[in-house]
Amino acid sequence: MSLTLVIGNKAYSSWSLRPWIALKQARIPFEERVIPIYIEGSREQILSQSPAGKVPILKDGDVTVWDSLAIIEYLAETYPDAGIWPKDPVARAMARSISAEMHSGFLALRRHYTMNVRRSYTDFPIDPEANENIARIEEIWAEARGRFGQGGPFLFGEFSGADAMYAPVATRFETYNVKLMPEARAYVDAILTLPAMQQWYDGAKAETWVLPQYEF
Amino acid sequence: MSLTLVIGNKAYSSWSLRPWIALKQARIPFEERVIPIYIEGSREQILSQSPAGKVPILKDGDVTVWDSLAIIEYLAETYPDAGIWPKDPVARAMARSISAEMHSGFLALRRHYTMNVRRSYTDFPIDPEANENIARIEEIWAEARGRFGQGGPFLFGEFSGADAMYAPVATRFETYNVKLMPEARAYVDAILTLPAMQQWYDGAKAETWVLPQYEF
Repeated sequence: MSLTLVIGNKAYSSWSLRPWIALKQARIPFEERVIPIYIEGSREQILSQSPAGKVPILKDGDVTVWDSLAIIEYLAETYPDAGIWPKDPVARAMARSISAEMHSGFLALRRHYTMNVRRSYTDFPIDPEANENIARIEEIWAEARGRFGQGGPFLFGEFSGADAMYAPVATRFETYNVKLMPEARAYVDAILTLPAMQQWYDGAKAETWVLPQYEF
Repeated sequence: MSLTLVIGNKAYSSWSLRPWIALKQARIPFEERVIPIYIEGSREQILSQSPAGKVPILKDGDVTVWDSLAIIEYLAETYPDAGIWPKDPVARAMARSISAEMHSGFLALRRHYTMNVRRSYTDFPIDPEANENIARIEEIWAEARGRFGQGGPFLFGEFSGADAMYAPVATRFETYNVKLMPEARAYVDAILTLPAMQQWYDGAKAETWVLPQYEF
């Protein structure tokens, strides 16, 4: 086993969850190393692992990959039989497109509903721009499920890198009690009931770091 | 020839330049279709091509790929001999990491120095956050060139998808007369003097759309 994934706090680090759940679902063994973010010394510790100064970071021998999407592409290439991307080329092109859309976009959603898997709100204020993001995400999920979701409960049937990219969104919808269409709600439940996701939540609950900027 | 690339205005659409220059440099033939952005009817026209409502969009038979980075990955997979990513796996992992870093980041730079390849400023105001982005970009370029740039003037020697991702940054540094370290300046010149980049600039100059939000 030569893979090491450096991640941030499980409670808050949405970017870290993406490659972590991709690795777990693909049953690729890896060693996990947590560097808590935004506390004294975090920045120096992360910089010692990667010049970008951000988690997640994947180490594989002399290869270092930083950034969640780059790690997922690296895994897809290195483990071609692990099912990271859908096998069908049309589905795969869509999976990459919606993963990239998540990667560069939905800023209002990410800002307004920061990830915090330890918390639960019933009447969190609504934000109009975040609502537009949510509508687009529901549309993406419905299109993927409608076109390619026959073989299972995930966006392209079986779990893929696209589900890994949207997994933190599923936790946000749960944390902030976001009203969803029934199909979107069913998809969120499919993500959240994965044993690996439960393992992530348990890990987050066991953490003792509390960062005020993520707690409302 | 079955590839069609839908792009926005060449003057302003930094995301469009990325897959366009990647296709040109890889000598992959394609048909180009321009939908000018942010004018009346743009949104409907773009939505008729892709549900994400954004350019660029690549069409290849029944495959539709939206988002610049997803298109570059699609090209790398579909044309494995076109040199879209570096051949060496360590270099390729870095190329993907820095491409992803560009894709999701450098927001201050992108906001402050919007792409406008038709303009040139000598005393454009400096922005501290954009300056931090510039310092990181210079560091990225220096690291890639230092480790993998022996075979040519580009980040990994020969032109790759990583150069395509950073090509709009090169135009911004030129437009806003950003002071750079000599090595970074040499790299910007290598990008800007590419015949394909000259072709992009000529195309931008021939456009008649003028969007006030991009003109200072």
